[in-house]
Amino acid sequence: MEKRVLSKLKEIVGKENVLNSPEELYVYSYNALYYQQQLPEAAILPNSAQQISSILKLANEERFGVVPRGSGTGLSGGSVPSENSIVLVMNNWNRVLELDEENLTAWVEPGVITGQFQSVVEMKGLLYPPDPGSSMICTLGGNVAENAGGLRGLKYGVTKNYVMGIEVILPNGDIVLLGGKNIKDVAGYNMKDVLIGSEGTLGIFTKILLRLLPKPETNQTMLVSFSVMNDAAKTVSEIIAAKIVPSCLEFLDNTTIKAVEAYAKLGLNTTSGAMLLIEVDGRKQIVEEDFAVIENICRKNNATSVQMARDTKEAIGLRAARKSAYAALARATPTVLSEDVAVPRSELAKIVESIQSISKKNNIPIGIFGHSGDGNLHPLCLTDENDNDNYARAQKSVEEIYDAVLSLKGTITGEHGIGLAKRDYLEKAISLSPLQMMNSLKNIFD
Amino acid sequence: MEKRVLSKLKEIVGKENVLNSPEELYVYSYNALYYQQQLPEAAILPNSAQQISSILKLANEERFGVVPRGSGTGLSGGSVPSENSIVLVMNNWNRVLELDEENLTAWVEPGVITGQFQSVVEMKGLLYPPDPGSSMICTLGGNVAENAGGLRGLKYGVTKNYVMGIEVILPNGDIVLLGGKNIKDVAGYNMKDVLIGSEGTLGIFTKILLRLLPKPETNQTMLVSFSVMNDAAKTVSEIIAAKIVPSCLEFLDNTTIKAVEAYAKLGLNTTSGAMLLIEVDGRKQIVEEDFAVIENICRKNNATSVQMARDTKEAIGLRAARKSAYAALARATPTVLSEDVAVPRSELAKIVESIQSISKKNNIPIGIFGHSGDGNLHPLCLTDENDNDNYARAQKSVEEIYDAVLSLKGTITGEHGIGLAKRDYLEKAISLSPLQMMNSLKNIFD
Repeated sequence: MEKRVLSKLKEIVGKENVLNSPEELYVYSYNALYYQQQLPEAAILPNSAQQISSILKLANEERFGVVPRGSGTGLSGGSVPSENSIVLVMNNWNRVLELDEENLTAWVEPGVITGQFQSVVEMKGLLYPPDPGSSMICTLGGNVAENAGGLRGLKYGVTKNYVMGIEVILPNGDIVLLGGKNIKDVAGYNMKDVLIGSEGTLGIFTKILLRLLPKPETNQTMLVSFSVMNDAAKTVSEIIAAKIVPSCLEFLDNTTIKAVEAYAKLGLNTTSGAMLLIEVDGRKQIVEEDFAVIENICRKNNATSVQMARDTKEAIGLRAARKSAYAALARATPTVLSEDVAVPRSELAKIVESIQSISKKNNIPIGIFGHSGDGNLHPLCLTDENDNDNYARAQKSVEEIYDAVLSLKGTITGEHGIGLAKRDYLEKAISLSPLQMMNSLKNIFD
Repeated sequence: MEKRVLSKLKEIVGKENVLNSPEELYVYSYNALYYQQQLPEAAILPNSAQQISSILKLANEERFGVVPRGSGTGLSGGSVPSENSIVLVMNNWNRVLELDEENLTAWVEPGVITGQFQSVVEMKGLLYPPDPGSSMICTLGGNVAENAGGLRGLKYGVTKNYVMGIEVILPNGDIVLLGGKNIKDVAGYNMKDVLIGSEGTLGIFTKILLRLLPKPETNQTMLVSFSVMNDAAKTVSEIIAAKIVPSCLEFLDNTTIKAVEAYAKLGLNTTSGAMLLIEVDGRKQIVEEDFAVIENICRKNNATSVQMARDTKEAIGLRAARKSAYAALARATPTVLSEDVAVPRSELAKIVESIQSISKKNNIPIGIFGHSGDGNLHPLCLTDENDNDNYARAQKSVEEIYDAVLSLKGTITGEHGIGLAKRDYLEKAISLSPLQMMNSLKNIFD
């Protein structure tokens, strides 16, 4: 980046808010998908919507890219800079601006940590349901940009279902408010929802209005083991067929269970073919009734163990098996190719079977875990990027997984986004006409 | 329309499916907002997506408008033809194509009547929550085009929350499928949700994939009278503050109560300042507990009568007070200006007060009823279009209501849409930059 442009940036945000030493730039060159890397031209810490507006106007004049970034927990490279870009570091935008208990809404800045926000609203007896796996680190702005899903998708939906309004700076520098506290509003096209999941490509969010729910009276947690996968799959189907909607219905395969046990030493039975983490929330007596029904379904389907949490501390212990899955698999091998496919729930057993046979055929271990309640799975291919042959087989496995998913009318990304990682696959997943619409949409905003 | 073009239309759909006698055209010249009228050039009954595609291609070549239409229950003129347009009559597209109990979804054609669809899924123990006032007549395609709301908005949201996929014919004739059965899917921009509430301006829907819920075990209904409005408003606030989320929380003012009683003779107390229709659904024991709490709140706030339905028949009787509100007010006067404003729920008491003082000041009776649970009200200005002075005061009242609503950060349409009726007011409600985006969006699709 020319010095001249850099000085203009310094004029806008103050020179202390422009980072461009090599060490500083390195920090912003990657996200949780660590093998994608690109140094930004500068990392900027803006302090106001007006400053961001000025930066975007400058970016148009001087032709550089602007990539907003929260905690960088994304797994598709969404916050990794492209060439000739600056990074907008939004972590200081971390205030809850308003908690409106009468309308059950909250105005937040995009840099608020999701888990911290959950705690704040829970203290008021409220619930913010979206619960991405990285909730203790990730930011609400990133969640909205990626339309983050997480563990409560089946019962509560995804981030999109909780965003009522966005203040966004458009690429031309206009500061625009879309949406508001009206539960019903059909004036004009629904532009707000196009921004959700747009991965930072259509504008920079500066304020977000979130919808809250009353906090459920209680929440119960159960961890169940099965010797074979198929019994776990049948259990999931029968729970849904019983018209019970758990708040969490998570799944781990044998490869993942072994990695988790090696990593976290939770005392899991490493010969289990599959485990389910099941949670039900709501009124106490209903939760107890539903839990008894679920336990029966599990036992009928040959569960080898059923552990129930007696209190919050035990629940956290049981959740650890699922919550440490990503880290456990990632440390088991030099490189993981982390996937995020989703299928209609009825196709879950089929896709798990397909992935297992892809793993066998290509001789690449694949750990599978994810959200069986909503059909969103994370197959992690364990490989080593320095072993060319092995890495090629892992990449082939990923493509074969995509083919299998698409043949079941699934999607190549359920919640992690396209980012840089899957850009080349988007054409495979989406037919030409909608893809052209998306390109045109991007042009409007630009 | 030139004969030449008409013959081309006949070639596409068969001549028996092109209606153009004066009587036939008259039928398609208006919708439930009866004072807007325009004769179409022809009314076409298409039989396949391919035919619709050919019609749209022809429309581009020959430059005529295409207006899709279901039952014509809309209240903003969304299905009223503009000049030089044909109407696509979609009522024969009335099949439920698939009911997938495993994935809790249904593929439907756009002409399926909403209420009939609700009955079909309820027989399978499922629930399709969106419940517009006109559910016995209106079609699902129209509901999606207008993002219809209705009586269950507070607990269950609006139509948008239940649309998982749309097959749409774009203005260039492309047949495109957006969305699908994946609960989570973030591949590419969210184009599907832009279509919802686009009022038929971006494409013609030919298939819709809807999300279903397990049907609640039970449903209870209560009709409560208050002598003054303020007590009803306080009751609404306190129910929400008690963390109870009724499936229905509807409101009628004194003008509406009087009109309903004159029309339906239900034995309502016509001196009541306000009435609330309250429904709670869910598991039996919880519904009973919640109902007891709600009854206490009502009595504490000076309810003059509390009627509870003992069975479904009685519930239908109590609902009649609310369901006949529109018809009752419409017959009380030669012309009604039917409005559809929404405000954040906390502003409900204020907006009701404002509307009442606008009514007094302009000497125009205004009946107010609507969805107090979600802040969406329908003020109906009772006037006579043949009495110039009276009609001018009614129109002035509508504009003053819009101003009052916008000053409370509300919206000029909660669920009826902009249509032809409010086209001129959109600029007042939405700032320039989003309006330009919407125009550009329309251009992309065109």
